[in-house]
Amino acid sequence: MELAAGGKMSPKITTELLKQLRQVMKSPKYVQEPVQAYIVPSGDAHQSEYIAPCDCRRAFISGFDGSAGTAIVTEQHAAMWTDGRYFLQAANQMDNNWTLMKMGLKDTPTQEDWLVSVLPEGSKVGVDPFIIPADQWKRMSKVLRSAGHDLVPIKENLIDTIWTDCPQRPCKPLITLDLSYTGVSWRDKIVALRSKMAERKVLWFVVTALDEVAWLFNLRGSDVEYNPVFFAYAVIGMNTIRLFIDGDRMTDPAVREHLQLDSTLEPEFKIQVMPYGSILTELQAVGASLSPKEKVWLSDKASYALTEAIPKAYQYLTPYTPICIAKAVKNTSETEGMRRAHVKDAVALCELFNWLEKEVPKGTVTEIIAADKAEEFRSQQKDFVELSFATISSTGPNGAIIHYKPVPETNRTLSVNEIYLLDSGAQYKDGTTDVTRTMHFGTPSAYEKECFTYVLKGHIAVSAAIFPNGTKGHLLDSFARSALWDCGLDYLHGTGHGVGSFLNVHEGPCGISYKTFADEPLEAGMIVSDEPGYYEDGSFGIRIENVVLVIPAETKYNFKNRGSLTFEPLTLVPIQTKMIDVSLLTQKELNWVNDYHQKCREVIGAELERQGRLEALQWLIRETEPLIRVQ
Amino acid sequence: MELAAGGKMSPKITTELLKQLRQVMKSPKYVQEPVQAYIVPSGDAHQSEYIAPCDCRRAFISGFDGSAGTAIVTEQHAAMWTDGRYFLQAANQMDNNWTLMKMGLKDTPTQEDWLVSVLPEGSKVGVDPFIIPADQWKRMSKVLRSAGHDLVPIKENLIDTIWTDCPQRPCKPLITLDLSYTGVSWRDKIVALRSKMAERKVLWFVVTALDEVAWLFNLRGSDVEYNPVFFAYAVIGMNTIRLFIDGDRMTDPAVREHLQLDSTLEPEFKIQVMPYGSILTELQAVGASLSPKEKVWLSDKASYALTEAIPKAYQYLTPYTPICIAKAVKNTSETEGMRRAHVKDAVALCELFNWLEKEVPKGTVTEIIAADKAEEFRSQQKDFVELSFATISSTGPNGAIIHYKPVPETNRTLSVNEIYLLDSGAQYKDGTTDVTRTMHFGTPSAYEKECFTYVLKGHIAVSAAIFPNGTKGHLLDSFARSALWDCGLDYLHGTGHGVGSFLNVHEGPCGISYKTFADEPLEAGMIVSDEPGYYEDGSFGIRIENVVLVIPAETKYNFKNRGSLTFEPLTLVPIQTKMIDVSLLTQKELNWVNDYHQKCREVIGAELERQGRLEALQWLIRETEPLIRVQ
Repeated sequence: MELAAGGKMSPKITTELLKQLRQVMKSPKYVQEPVQAYIVPSGDAHQSEYIAPCDCRRAFISGFDGSAGTAIVTEQHAAMWTDGRYFLQAANQMDNNWTLMKMGLKDTPTQEDWLVSVLPEGSKVGVDPFIIPADQWKRMSKVLRSAGHDLVPIKENLIDTIWTDCPQRPCKPLITLDLSYTGVSWRDKIVALRSKMAERKVLWFVVTALDEVAWLFNLRGSDVEYNPVFFAYAVIGMNTIRLFIDGDRMTDPAVREHLQLDSTLEPEFKIQVMPYGSILTELQAVGASLSPKEKVWLSDKASYALTEAIPKAYQYLTPYTPICIAKAVKNTSETEGMRRAHVKDAVALCELFNWLEKEVPKGTVTEIIAADKAEEFRSQQKDFVELSFATISSTGPNGAIIHYKPVPETNRTLSVNEIYLLDSGAQYKDGTTDVTRTMHFGTPSAYEKECFTYVLKGHIAVSAAIFPNGTKGHLLDSFARSALWDCGLDYLHGTGHGVGSFLNVHEGPCGISYKTFADEPLEAGMIVSDEPGYYEDGSFGIRIENVVLVIPAETKYNFKNRGSLTFEPLTLVPIQTKMIDVSLLTQKELNWVNDYHQKCREVIGAELERQGRLEALQWLIRETEPLIRVQ
Repeated sequence: MELAAGGKMSPKITTELLKQLRQVMKSPKYVQEPVQAYIVPSGDAHQSEYIAPCDCRRAFISGFDGSAGTAIVTEQHAAMWTDGRYFLQAANQMDNNWTLMKMGLKDTPTQEDWLVSVLPEGSKVGVDPFIIPADQWKRMSKVLRSAGHDLVPIKENLIDTIWTDCPQRPCKPLITLDLSYTGVSWRDKIVALRSKMAERKVLWFVVTALDEVAWLFNLRGSDVEYNPVFFAYAVIGMNTIRLFIDGDRMTDPAVREHLQLDSTLEPEFKIQVMPYGSILTELQAVGASLSPKEKVWLSDKASYALTEAIPKAYQYLTPYTPICIAKAVKNTSETEGMRRAHVKDAVALCELFNWLEKEVPKGTVTEIIAADKAEEFRSQQKDFVELSFATISSTGPNGAIIHYKPVPETNRTLSVNEIYLLDSGAQYKDGTTDVTRTMHFGTPSAYEKECFTYVLKGHIAVSAAIFPNGTKGHLLDSFARSALWDCGLDYLHGTGHGVGSFLNVHEGPCGISYKTFADEPLEAGMIVSDEPGYYEDGSFGIRIENVVLVIPAETKYNFKNRGSLTFEPLTLVPIQTKMIDVSLLTQKELNWVNDYHQKCREVIGAELERQGRLEALQWLIRETEPLIRVQ
């Protein structure tokens, strides 16, 4: 799947498509007045990071299928904004009809400024109001208006009108999760949400993010690859629950029972099921029914269409919803599930690395074969659902491409002469994993070991950090870099992201990054990744990633009862000791590695034994031999 | 001076004053329509941190004279918003007419929300448009408007109308700084500014901050205590320079020559001197003269009055002005001046500490006497101008009050049983200093030494940090806390602030803080403080502060030519080794202390010798003996 979507490197011919789009931009069938420009953003109606094929409209019109980019088509121009990760890919995938706008470079105009510079006076700029987030609409329309143009919502998506073979919106069966997985029933989640609503004096809450709908109702789906979500909205009132969802999914007896659709319930827990497409009219009806001082709570990233359904005076917008924050703090059932998932994941990786150690020297293992093998081992584990993202399986220079995914054109054979970096993860019914290990199957150079050891020191500095309650993740980011910085090395990505519990592998509202965009304070129960790296363009990439759980820490003075936190690694996969220059480790760091490996040996060893995977067990025991400092 | 302003602890009786204020709030002589509320912010027309007595309007009306607070008076209420540093002081200084609004507490309403809750429908809220920053006006007026009220600018300051014995606005003589101090002539600064203006396509730049006017023209003043600035504005066009300044200061021949007022100059460097009070009408004339696409550059913290003089379409607002950024990066003449100033400052402190060591055991030295003595020693140094802030001289429990200044009511006697914390600094014609040392004149307890050593470890972690070019200061803040955090200790203030060059001791746009408000990337030539601390309420305070210069660092791999930075301490005052628990230091930290003391001994020793201060020299040599690890 990822190959078909991500791998095309020859340009798509778009002359005819652009002609058609420009026709519908003037067609009274679709637009009240002709629009002189049409914006095609990346996202779907839920501002998802990963989107379904039917939502890949920007890729359809341009050929460029990277994860981030915005296309704008005017009568004369077609332009694509994307960031540094995708300059090369976009240039390769788009034909000469398109101009690449390299975001982050000094001379690249913003979309608004560019529109102002190319449009004739008094132009109309169209956009699908369901795809553009409200905050972005606000910014854009302000600039356009001040230059005499108008941003106008176009009800029908104009790409869809010309996309004759557009895939159907997925509508796959749902999975119900019982209390042993979720720890809290959907009823209790509704009760907690309503109490947050009462605190803020809002009457309605609109759930627009797919993972928030899934979490709230303890349901999962598979409408979007890698993300166990399903297309739905929900509107929660103080006495009503409306779930907007399509297909025959509500006829599944297990789902009906889970949601108690056929039980006699107190009215405030009775779920009204409505068609997915009726959200807008229902929300407009809510908006029209409000009295002064009654408020409706939405994320400020919700679509312009839904936000505008509520008159401005009644909108209550926040960057993080109460669901986003509650979802981030995992309860005991969820953390126990995550632990189980990580044990199974470690078993699969021990099998893989043992297999690679034997096969790589034969020269027959490519990046794609290794990725497939990783998936094969994972799929043997209980409650495996799917991968949690496209496996990054990269060797030698490919390892330096941070968002690399192997495709036939770039597929390299693993060898005993190059570093191999594997960043992969899976969805299990009890949890989500994401782990990176960097290995050498021959003899690493002193320089490679030096760099690896700095990355490891950074990984440990975060993992072992102790910090007071209420600390934001961005304050820990430099701990991961300090050892690299001392030698004049660095990596150009954040150190960690929130991880869902059998949900999206990237989730808000916390993280560990020099950027401060996802940065609610860390709390016990939150789960983030710890993944510093180092990348040498054209030669190799190194990254060491564990998923870690925020836990209370014991300290001598305990911050005057403010309390303190630290991390517990959930990922229990050996870190290749062959790559470590022990002389660069402090005693504390050396102890950390040995303690970590001891735990890997105990916990994963027991499970390997239970599963009868004795060869992998031998590998694990070999790889977790304690490090000894050579004096 | 500080005693009179900061020391009054009995409440001011404000019944009569409030009555008078409520009368003028309705008087057609001052307001077009009656206002139902009047806001009295803290600041002056230049958004200065330190203000002149004539600008202490909030203190006049309420009695509360802390550095931060906003008063709002309605027909029924008088309320004061201030933060945790000042709850006690405000409660003590205000009478029963006033309600204290404790900012930062959960239930405290914002000023806007409170106004909405108490005002009758359709009220008018007045404020002096010269005192309120444009960004604050915008936020406040939006909330008030949405609740049906109006924020209205009141031309005449209503406090001034009832403040019969209001002191005059200071208008003290100016100091001219020649090239040996500034490194760059004012002409060249204007050229550089105009080139920044051309880059951004703006035609005019309005200088509103007092330290920016002073820096631009290489002039200093003494209109505001501790800050060598003078009341003035400037408006720089591409071919014109207008300086708005009062008094006979422009008749001083030295100033006339410095500004070349009487020379035949190219017209674009001819300075037009205008009355301070004419800025608004001149700016309105500029605003009226603009053609489409012509822009005027202002700080977004400039007053509402000046910002509104320029029609919205022509405003170009940025959080940091090009002067603020240029001023922060010191040139060689400025850093050399700062070095000289710090040597003199260290001489004064060696004298002081030597004197304290002898006098404290006698039981006759109070906090105030110690502060005065520090000033006396500083004033003996060449080019001493004044202190750079009110000396924090605190012993025992007073040391735990972070913004403490000794007043007769709190004045404690230094003893051999308590920790003494001295945070002080001065303005010299060649530079500004700010240094904190924490000493014990008897035998510190093991716990006091432990805490001191954690603070020292944090101080060293920042001072010795190496980081890539472009790093923001907030990313270094946790380095200062890590050792404290490991034991469950922390301090509730930032780690460092920008320091001016014979200018304000606090300046933007850089700093080292977990807050990200003043956070432009660090560059070589910037000067900041490094001042972690630890405070034990009711018993003691510890802080170790050096002023440090950002300098290029040498690293093994140099960030692929991105370059790297570190800090060089400008402050060269011994750190009391008696307070250090050597067993808690790493070898690297121990070496840092010994190297630092070696440099203190060499540089300050030579100067003490040159000045014939031989007793202080002996003290310095004793205090800089290398630390030895006891095995």
